[in-house]
Amino acid sequence: MLKNTLLPKIIAFDVFGTVVDWHSSISNELKNLNLGIDPDLFANAWRKGYYPAMARVRSGELPWTKIDHLHRMMLDQVLKDFKITSLSEEQKKELNLVWHRLVPWPDTVEGLTRLKAKFTITTLSNGNLSLLSNMAKNGALPWDLILSAEVFKHYKPDPETYLGVAELFEISPNEVMLAAAHTDDLLAAQQCGLQTAYIHRPFEFGQKSPKNMPNVDFFDYSVNNLLELSQILCKSAL
Amino acid sequence: MLKNTLLPKIIAFDVFGTVVDWHSSISNELKNLNLGIDPDLFANAWRKGYYPAMARVRSGELPWTKIDHLHRMMLDQVLKDFKITSLSEEQKKELNLVWHRLVPWPDTVEGLTRLKAKFTITTLSNGNLSLLSNMAKNGALPWDLILSAEVFKHYKPDPETYLGVAELFEISPNEVMLAAAHTDDLLAAQQCGLQTAYIHRPFEFGQKSPKNMPNVDFFDYSVNNLLELSQILCKSAL
Repeated sequence: MLKNTLLPKIIAFDVFGTVVDWHSSISNELKNLNLGIDPDLFANAWRKGYYPAMARVRSGELPWTKIDHLHRMMLDQVLKDFKITSLSEEQKKELNLVWHRLVPWPDTVEGLTRLKAKFTITTLSNGNLSLLSNMAKNGALPWDLILSAEVFKHYKPDPETYLGVAELFEISPNEVMLAAAHTDDLLAAQQCGLQTAYIHRPFEFGQKSPKNMPNVDFFDYSVNNLLELSQILCKSAL
Repeated sequence: MLKNTLLPKIIAFDVFGTVVDWHSSISNELKNLNLGIDPDLFANAWRKGYYPAMARVRSGELPWTKIDHLHRMMLDQVLKDFKITSLSEEQKKELNLVWHRLVPWPDTVEGLTRLKAKFTITTLSNGNLSLLSNMAKNGALPWDLILSAEVFKHYKPDPETYLGVAELFEISPNEVMLAAAHTDDLLAAQQCGLQTAYIHRPFEFGQKSPKNMPNVDFFDYSVNNLLELSQILCKSAL
């Protein structure tokens, strides 16, 4: 599995799906709202609007818009699509903040804690800073630093995000590793010279929609969770 | 002492002098270099260049320049003033990074940990992100978030920094408190509507140059350390 013998100085983590289980977190909150809809379908529909919404910012069609506001635009559309009219404005605001309360995968906190002992660990997420810091506080995520698209005013996969991490620390891009559950994110990071670790999260879209293992030949590492990543990298760092 | 009964949602901390003891940290490293100079005087001379250097950025004379680079410009000048020519480029680079290794005041880690249980705690420092995250890692500072002038591309006391914290969290400025050992920082924050807590650090400039207690009548709180601040605020938050 080990293809790159240079150890990274910084490990930057994608967050939604890689570090936290957005699908279960959202569908569980939806269940409690008793909206008479399939919470699995609703959660996936909400998430489906994510890339198109960011694309509108990346293309310049929309000015810089933080994820909280994109999530709200997408929520309003999904509520319309699911013909839900029973939520008050206050309830919609509260539901939109579910993204601040996403729950870590079972291996996340221990995996990050072990990695933190040997490396600097940061987020590199499209989530905004308040979202990521509230999530870290709720979920006890032990980040050394919280970096966001909001700092670079560019959304991943724009190169400014990946290269931005290296620039902030004045290191070369290949001293930064991106850890992510999404091949498009990893390929874009690799194009910028970063090391890459694929984290397989088969149930990112729920138990009913398992993700197949993609082709990971291009990446430096491929693991099933963050404990596995810590075992490989911390052993090498001894 | 309690003048403002609204509790803050976010406490933003000035860092150099307020959270960490830059003077001792720097003079201790200087002692080990055996440069034949008074380390107390050298440390204070280095720090003295800080406000003028930032003023050059704030006025637009210099483009955005991170503190690491301003520190290096100031270091080169102070080395010249102290007629020190014995340091190699590698040693100068290493010495300049002493600001990443500044040691917390004795009350800091416990005070911040207690405050973190009730509030969101963030830095609001002119130090750059890599400096602040390295410092937090070295000193076990338990920040919820690391915010820097580098995020806002404005140095304190520009209003963009204080208001920026409130904007990121979409709260009103008076729901943010600035905790700082410097009255100019606190007054500027207060002008922007923030709550203010003065932390008295009499030996910020060393044991030989004690700071007098300034007039703190304008501030919401005045305390001697972060444990005192936690006692007052956490009690009120019960």
